[in-house]
Amino acid sequence: MSNPSLPACAVLDAAEVAKPFRDELKLKVSSMIEKPLLVGFLGNDDPAARKYAKWTAKSCAEVGIRFELREVPRVELEDRIIDANADSSVHGIMVYYPCFGPSIDQYLQNVVAKEKDVEGLNFQFRYNMYHNIRFLDKEEKLKSTLPCTPLAVVKVLEHVAVYNPKLPFGNRLHGKHICVINRSEVVGRPLAAMLANDGAKVWSVDVDNVLIFSRGVGLKHRNHKVSESTQKLDEILPLCDVVISGVPSPSYKISTASLKEGVVAINFSSAENFEASVVERASFYIGSVGKVTVAMLERNLVRSVEYQLEQRTIASKVDK
Amino acid sequence: MSNPSLPACAVLDAAEVAKPFRDELKLKVSSMIEKPLLVGFLGNDDPAARKYAKWTAKSCAEVGIRFELREVPRVELEDRIIDANADSSVHGIMVYYPCFGPSIDQYLQNVVAKEKDVEGLNFQFRYNMYHNIRFLDKEEKLKSTLPCTPLAVVKVLEHVAVYNPKLPFGNRLHGKHICVINRSEVVGRPLAAMLANDGAKVWSVDVDNVLIFSRGVGLKHRNHKVSESTQKLDEILPLCDVVISGVPSPSYKISTASLKEGVVAINFSSAENFEASVVERASFYIGSVGKVTVAMLERNLVRSVEYQLEQRTIASKVDK
Repeated sequence: MSNPSLPACAVLDAAEVAKPFRDELKLKVSSMIEKPLLVGFLGNDDPAARKYAKWTAKSCAEVGIRFELREVPRVELEDRIIDANADSSVHGIMVYYPCFGPSIDQYLQNVVAKEKDVEGLNFQFRYNMYHNIRFLDKEEKLKSTLPCTPLAVVKVLEHVAVYNPKLPFGNRLHGKHICVINRSEVVGRPLAAMLANDGAKVWSVDVDNVLIFSRGVGLKHRNHKVSESTQKLDEILPLCDVVISGVPSPSYKISTASLKEGVVAINFSSAENFEASVVERASFYIGSVGKVTVAMLERNLVRSVEYQLEQRTIASKVDK
Repeated sequence: MSNPSLPACAVLDAAEVAKPFRDELKLKVSSMIEKPLLVGFLGNDDPAARKYAKWTAKSCAEVGIRFELREVPRVELEDRIIDANADSSVHGIMVYYPCFGPSIDQYLQNVVAKEKDVEGLNFQFRYNMYHNIRFLDKEEKLKSTLPCTPLAVVKVLEHVAVYNPKLPFGNRLHGKHICVINRSEVVGRPLAAMLANDGAKVWSVDVDNVLIFSRGVGLKHRNHKVSESTQKLDEILPLCDVVISGVPSPSYKISTASLKEGVVAINFSSAENFEASVVERASFYIGSVGKVTVAMLERNLVRSVEYQLEQRTIASKVDK
């Protein structure tokens, strides 16, 4: 039962978090003569992937981005990605995973040309992200693309001021304790690293073990450090200001009683990992970040277009 | 019971297959003023990995290669790889996996500098291998590194003349039916692709499904094509001239009765995937390819040294 003396939990809508980004995107895209084209490859028959694809199409249409869904047998996916890489009318490429499983899918993520990789899953982007390298060039003009779902979670945390704007940029999570339940290479591990790079202490929990991601000290160690932990989830949860969960199982539930009073609870699993009673304990709760993820995808696309234009400018200069 | 009217199965020793490569390596290394240095990183407490490391050390010593085992906590592995990448006294780097699991391990494989990646696990090498691109440069001087265990299996198949030397290079497995049970990104899938690139029809079997890898036709499709199959293992095995298995489970056994008479049977699992009776059915049987794998690793190392020297020559020319 909720305690009437406490202020109620704010249940956030992802659309509300996404709105300022979408407004900015609409403005940017409206000024573009050639509207950016995002190609999404669907190579599985996962209903969740199809739903996400429909959602992407709708969101892109609203923002003014052209979106084309290409349904292909998974065994042809690599060849079709290579075609799209070479096609200058395609500005961004995304793939609705899983197609084969984590290992082959990670290979395919690297087949997508870096310049068109709006999901930020290419090795170079991931290396930069893990090493807190924020730009692709020495002039710091081209931002290194960040993976969409982890970035969406960061935007949610900025929205609710868990990121403290009074702290210096790059350390705005200083003092925050965060638990991330999921350590996939697509969401959980990059998210833990990004939060640690911004100053948080992060417990990264998966089914096998717990790792602690924390910010390195001094100039030489701007990126996070990782250490092993023997702590158990039920010891960790009461310490955490933020609990972020992405366990793809409908039976997995985080006990509300284990959470710190006033916790910020974020679910990014397609299943609901928190109990319904989480709203009696949390200060903010968000059950899905999907709409913010799509906004980040669109933002990465618009950046990619700028990146491709920059490259063409360089190439035409070289030609002369 | 074996049929005394049939010639007995030749049980191969990997050392016998490895010998000509090791002899060639000894000769090459003996002429090198600076003996190549291979650094192996051990970041787990897997006894099989430690055994493999000891084996590598022994084999390198015999060939004249310097080998240094560096034991590091897995959370420091990435930083130590980066140090070794930058250290010009290190010519080759290998890592005894698994450290974290397939996804993070695949990330680490890409952290190893391409020039020092003697295991051939870097994305660019893998992309080249899947696309049957055999050189790194247009002049076709620098061979693209192939992954060691799949390459070792190829060498076994050449040793027993499954590769037909009377057929043109690149098509010497034409007409051969091969089953590969395992579709990891480290062995099973690259192996299936390499065999298909050389002309075989390959059934790639894993726990979930079966894919068929076959050679593309014509100049435009030099690399293999993949299609889904609904065939079951017990329908596939009787068709296969070669059965290669790498299932890491002591309880997994391929029934001898399901094999074609005169099959070539190759086990690359640390467990024994064939029944003891396989020798009553097979023409050739090899229970472990580990020693050939190490020879391929050493061969890749010697090539890497040549590659690094080539790069330094280019760099010094540019300086002038």
